[in-house]
Amino acid sequence: MQKLTIVKVGGKVVEDVESLMKLLEDFSRISGRKILVHGGGKSATAMAEKLGVKTEMTGGRRITNKEMLDVVLMVYGGLINKNIVAKCQALGMNSVGLTGADLNIIKAVKRPVKDIDYGYAGDVVSVQAKQFENLLESGAVPVVAPLTHDGRGLMLNTNADTMAAETAKALADGYEVTLVYCFEKPGVLMDPDDDNSVIPVLSYSDFKKYQKDGIISEGMIPKLDNGFDALMAGVKDVIISNPESIVKLNDLGTHLAS
Amino acid sequence: MQKLTIVKVGGKVVEDVESLMKLLEDFSRISGRKILVHGGGKSATAMAEKLGVKTEMTGGRRITNKEMLDVVLMVYGGLINKNIVAKCQALGMNSVGLTGADLNIIKAVKRPVKDIDYGYAGDVVSVQAKQFENLLESGAVPVVAPLTHDGRGLMLNTNADTMAAETAKALADGYEVTLVYCFEKPGVLMDPDDDNSVIPVLSYSDFKKYQKDGIISEGMIPKLDNGFDALMAGVKDVIISNPESIVKLNDLGTHLAS
Repeated sequence: MQKLTIVKVGGKVVEDVESLMKLLEDFSRISGRKILVHGGGKSATAMAEKLGVKTEMTGGRRITNKEMLDVVLMVYGGLINKNIVAKCQALGMNSVGLTGADLNIIKAVKRPVKDIDYGYAGDVVSVQAKQFENLLESGAVPVVAPLTHDGRGLMLNTNADTMAAETAKALADGYEVTLVYCFEKPGVLMDPDDDNSVIPVLSYSDFKKYQKDGIISEGMIPKLDNGFDALMAGVKDVIISNPESIVKLNDLGTHLAS
Repeated sequence: MQKLTIVKVGGKVVEDVESLMKLLEDFSRISGRKILVHGGGKSATAMAEKLGVKTEMTGGRRITNKEMLDVVLMVYGGLINKNIVAKCQALGMNSVGLTGADLNIIKAVKRPVKDIDYGYAGDVVSVQAKQFENLLESGAVPVVAPLTHDGRGLMLNTNADTMAAETAKALADGYEVTLVYCFEKPGVLMDPDDDNSVIPVLSYSDFKKYQKDGIISEGMIPKLDNGFDALMAGVKDVIISNPESIVKLNDLGTHLAS
């Protein structure tokens, strides 16, 4: 089977032009088929502030009202995505910027309202593996923004970690997939203040234990849930690492183990 | 040869959600291969104002400074393009939003500074017919935003009329291409105040004569220059019309004739 590397990048790495450029250079050195999935860091919040759009939060999660949807379409779908595509082209990668709506690659449903109305937030329903395969086999490098659509004309703000995991799962039948969650830290840490405390291999039972013990912190939990979900669905390797590690993935970061 | 219809839409048609939806419904009824190229109307200027970015103009033309480039990337590449793509998908068209950077389909050069520095404005250098063909033959409907790249990592603000004409020219070898410039008026008018004064067939010599006599107005001239350029390069039919006409193109609008 062909190898496919899916790198999800977010947080400060995307916000800072220099760190993003460095990451894209390293990304360009990965051989074989590849897909980049990007988040937007705090750039949408910053743009919303400039435009006087209030960022509504509940339980630490953003509510995407109509005005905020416009902001994420602009910032994630336009500004960040197109700048990444242009840089990738300059680095010799024939990239193509995509949201879930483009070629209908990732369809979602507007999150049902239970206790909380998250507004225009999407929960992934389906990934069109065939469309990704067509692009990959023609030599293209998809660059995916954290946006989906509902198939009825509505764009939806969607979690980039989940989109990366769902894409990895959908493509695991046809490729030997490595999924890399790339963020500021060198991996999953035993001590959040010590970058030398990377857990090289993290099993699901250890994850659950560390979660119970409070060793693995709040923000990391949904990322690891997504990662183990992908691993159990046939993704070959799931790695949590920082941008410096993506050229030598075998040796660095935290590798998940079932 | 397969028929290909390229519709360029801009101005108030894009600014107003209702007129845009109506246009997309009509566009969905065009049979055969098709491409939509959209401008942004005044929406970028409005967003720039909200963000406190000054719109610099010289001789009636916009100067794209760095801040304005960010605004057009957001508004054209993100907000407008992705909303159109989502609506097209809802109408059963497997649309894919593209700038010139995506799949390197339209490369440009930053406009050289002579008397005036237009900033981050792109002059089209090349169109990758092959990439368009791959998408069209796979059943996709490209939705092109008025943005290109220079191949060195820079996105560029680019005239949508020119992008439509250059795309039509590049695809004229492989398809029987109809290029439609769709705007508010029902065609090229003998009297700008009388919508019943449409010129049904406009020859190049008449165009030049009307231009000299001041009958054809300022804003229409570059559009017609682009149109005749495409016609002379092998595009089968070039039509200037309003959105109402695009479902019965043979009977309505102004058809250019060499």
